[in-house]
Parts: sequence; C-alpha cells; structure tokens
Amino acid sequence: MNRICELFGIKYPIIMGGMSWAGTPKLAAAVSEAGGLGIIGAGPMRKKDLEKAIDEIRNLTDKPFGVNIILVSPYADELVETVIEKRVPVVTFGAGNPTKYIKSLKESGIKVVPVVASDNLARMVERSGADAIIAEGMESGGHIGEITTFVLVNAVSRKVSVPVIAAGGIVDGRGMAAAFALGAEGIQMGTRFIASKEADTHENFKQLILKSGIRDTVVTGASLGHSARVIKTKFAKKVRELEVSSPEEAENILVGSLRKAVLEGNINEGSFMAGQSTGLIEQLKSVKEIIEDIIQEFKETVIKLKEVSF
Amino acid sequence: MNRICELFGIKYPIIMGGMSWAGTPKLAAAVSEAGGLGIIGAGPMRKKDLEKAIDEIRNLTDKPFGVNIILVSPYADELVETVIEKRVPVVTFGAGNPTKYIKSLKESGIKVVPVVASDNLARMVERSGADAIIAEGMESGGHIGEITTFVLVNAVSRKVSVPVIAAGGIVDGRGMAAAFALGAEGIQMGTRFIASKEADTHENFKQLILKSGIRDTVVTGASLGHSARVIKTKFAKKVRELEVSSPEEAENILVGSLRKAVLEGNINEGSFMAGQSTGLIEQLKSVKEIIEDIIQEFKETVIKLKEVSF
Repeated sequence: MNRICELFGIKYPIIMGGMSWAGTPKLAAAVSEAGGLGIIGAGPMRKKDLEKAIDEIRNLTDKPFGVNIILVSPYADELVETVIEKRVPVVTFGAGNPTKYIKSLKESGIKVVPVVASDNLARMVERSGADAIIAEGMESGGHIGEITTFVLVNAVSRKVSVPVIAAGGIVDGRGMAAAFALGAEGIQMGTRFIASKEADTHENFKQLILKSGIRDTVVTGASLGHSARVIKTKFAKKVRELEVSSPEEAENILVGSLRKAVLEGNINEGSFMAGQSTGLIEQLKSVKEIIEDIIQEFKETVIKLKEVSF
Repeated sequence: MNRICELFGIKYPIIMGGMSWAGTPKLAAAVSEAGGLGIIGAGPMRKKDLEKAIDEIRNLTDKPFGVNIILVSPYADELVETVIEKRVPVVTFGAGNPTKYIKSLKESGIKVVPVVASDNLARMVERSGADAIIAEGMESGGHIGEITTFVLVNAVSRKVSVPVIAAGGIVDGRGMAAAFALGAEGIQMGTRFIASKEADTHENFKQLILKSGIRDTVVTGASLGHSARVIKTKFAKKVRELEVSSPEEAENILVGSLRKAVLEGNINEGSFMAGQSTGLIEQLKSVKEIIEDIIQEFKETVIKLKEVSF
C-alpha cells in the first residue's frame, strides 16, 4: 500500500498544490472526487472566508480534502484555529516553518504536511511531527526556493523517514514515475490543475498556460526577498526592471496582482503564477482525465523502464 | 538494446560531462574503461594540446571516447579540424549552436552530440543531423541555462526522435531511473566524476564537493551573460557582488578562475564549477565503483517502482 494514500485515505497519491485564489472549493472537490487530495488555498482568506470555503467543499464531496495555509499570512493563527474547529483532515503549509502549529493540529487529529525547499527544513519539520513532507523544486509556479525537483526530492527522501511528496515540474505519468524513482511516494501539482475544466480561474490564465513553452516563465521578486515564478508577460518583465530601478514601485504593482490574474485574467496588471511545466501542458482536460491519464502513463512508464537493458 | 550504447559502442549509457581542465585524458580513459563514454574537455585547448590529449587517451584505453568542444572557444574551428584528423569517435558540443560543424563531422563518421538547454535548440540540432542530444538542466555545474532537468528532459524527449541524454542533478541510480522515466536513454555526469579517485582535479576541489550540501552552489555571471553554477565560496560571493557594483572587475577576476580551482585548488581565486548534485555526493569513489553502483541502484529502483501499487 502506498503510504500517502494510506495517510490521507485517498485512492491516488496525487495532491493539489496550495494556490491562493485559484485553489477554490470547486476545484479542490473535483480533485478529491477524482481520487486525489483537493486543497483549498486559504492564501489571503480570513476566518470567515475559510469557514465558508470549508462548508462549500463539504457540500460538493464527502471525500478527504485539505487546506493550504501560507505562513506569511497575517491571519495564519486564526486560519489554524479554523481548520481545527472545522476538523479539516489535512493541512499543508507553505512559505515558512510551521513548527509552532504542528502540535495543536496533531492533537486534533489533523495531518500536517509542510512544503519545504531544502533538506534542512525537511529534517526540522519531521522532528516537529510532520506526517509527510512536500519537497518543492524551483521549477514550481508561485513562491519558490532555489533547489530543483531532481536534486531536492532525492536529497529530502534520503534524509527523512516520513513519506515525501514531490512538487515542481510534474504534469504527467512520466514525471510521476521520475518523482517516485527519486524517492517520492506522492506528487503535488498546481499549474496542471489550473488548466482544467473545473478550475474557476479566468480563461485568459488557462490559455496562457496552454500557449506557453518551457522557457516562458520568469522569476520575479528575487531581489525583493520573495521569489515567485510567473508566466513571462510584459507585466512580469516590467516588475523585473522595476526591482532594480525602483524596488518600492515593484512592490506596489505586485500588490493584488495574483488576484487580478486569477479572477480577472488581467494581462496588464496580473501575476500569472505558473511553473516551468506550463510548457508541458497542451490540453485543457477535466480533473478526472488529468488524474486518470497520469496513473495510466505512470504504469506504462514503469513497464518501459522494466524493459531497459544494457 | 539501449540506443545510446549502440550509437557509441559502449556497455553502459553513461557519458562524462564536457569539463574544461577537469576533463583530462586520464579521467576520460577511466570512464571509458569502466563501460561509459569518457570525454576529453577541450575547453581552452589549441590544436597541439588536443592532439596530445587524444594521443594520451589512446595510450590508456582502446575503448570509444569523445571530445567536448565549447563553441565560445576562439579555437573551435581548429579543434573540429583536429577531431576529424584524429578520427575521434564522438564529439559533444557545449555553449552554443554547433550546426555549422555537423555536416563535415558526420561525413567523417564522427557522432555529433550537442548539449542543449532548451527544446527549441534540440529540434534545431536534430534537423541539422545531431546523432543524439544532451538535455542539460540548470542544476548542472558550470555554464547553464534556465530550465530544470525535470522539465527539460521531458520536453526535449517528447520533441525529438534521436536519443536524449539527461544531464544535471544526476549522481546515482535513482537519478538515472528518473531520467529514463522522463524519456532519456542515457545520462551525463560531471560533478560526480570530479569526486573520483582517478580525477586529476585538485584535492581541495574534491573535498569541497564532498562537504557541500544541496544549497551550497550559486550562479555567477548571470548579469554578465554567462551564467555558471559554482560552489558558494567567498570568491563566488565576491563575484556576485562585483557583478552589480563593478561588472568589469567581476569579468577580470573570473579570467583563469576555473583553472585556478581545478589545477591549484585555489580557494581565494578559483571558480569551483559544480552542480547542485554536489549535495548528494558524499564519498570519493573510483570511476568503476561510481558506474557500477549506479547501474546496480538503477536496477533496484526499477524493481521498487514495479512494486508501487495504488
């Protein structure tokens, strides 16, 4: 039995990435219904918003789901409180070290799964009681570290005993098999699920993902201390220039830019956070097709590997 | 039969990375003798140097080997002439588009294998007659592009018909299996072979690789137009600072810095080019051990993948 499936009580070890604005109850419910683990992206939410989102997903599915909380949120405390009150099965944590929340969450029977970008943080959160660890490579969309999926997943899974979920650059069964070869027992995908029929994300965003090649993302905010991978639009190039010439102005135009991309499809003022994997995504699919195609291709890939001889 | 083994007439589809200064005839011969494809790094050589190196490797092994030529070398023309005159079996090309050399090399029966950092260049060199393509991710040591191994190998192998060799972040059998899952039919390694008993590289360099973690590399030269991944020494940090404050001075201190690292182990003035995989390398091994351990672990990894069930 796969440890990730067992831990979360799901059919396939495929987790939805924590995505602010794009991680809606509807999309998360579709992932859970298809056998994965859907994740509500709490991102900028406050207690009331998250309560509503949790009620919504429970109306759409009776399968396990999770909530992603980003540790840079000023409302992280009340969001943790909310998932405990609402008995959410799983919490994933992004952008920081969630150690201080782990004990109370676990006492409430909630599975805790931090996202890490380094092997050192992986060991630290394991010691604090994490149930699994998401090792996220720098090819991922949104906020990122510096180590690639290939190196990070290998290093983290050698250094911890809890199961590792690989994230960054994975959109298909080949990627899933590669992640498992490197030591992962599950995968997390964000960009791939935005380019789905069930995503509430603006059509412009979905089209940008389908059209972009592997070289069409860029990292903004590195010099501002919050690196984020986004699709290389004119706006993204402008942010990169302003980071050097006028960091304050860069910060100003970044405020609200992800919301503008996800909700409004605003090409001129939006940050379209997406991974390098955007270049591997060519078709809009239903969430069920995405997941079933991956599982099918995973199996085919393993068969091909068996046949390799030298 | 594996297409890379067939193409080069070797036992294992493991290729040595093209490494200036570190890619000596002795190390290349050890890789070829162990069943892989050793590569002489022509780097800064002129015709006479390369002739001598080719004679040297032929005294050490009768197995196939190759020469790596970097296209930024002012002597690229005479080096190509030399490999033709000397009937070298394989040429790998780094840092540019080798299209103009491919025809004459192939007419002389030499296998041509360009290193690419994008799927577009991969398609271009395939159309020009490349026999295989090395897809090199940005986690690699030395001169790099922007796309990670995970995304690049998947994208390139979907877009070309010639066999793809994965490079960047690979040091073990898990990595080899992951590369094959993503569509590669061979792997290339550089950093791993520097940390070998047979490498002529200075002991300080080898020790730095063994001690470094996955976060201990940094990219220098990005703003100067020639990004290179190196171990994060004080010198590397100084280069990064000078790139901003005084680009000319940065260029000046970079001149000869790779030679100083490889030959002298000069910590204060050397560029220790190495990949993020430096964090996965913990033991100095003989080349034979490196290769045989990888093949063994590759097979074990495939067996584990077969047992995955969900």
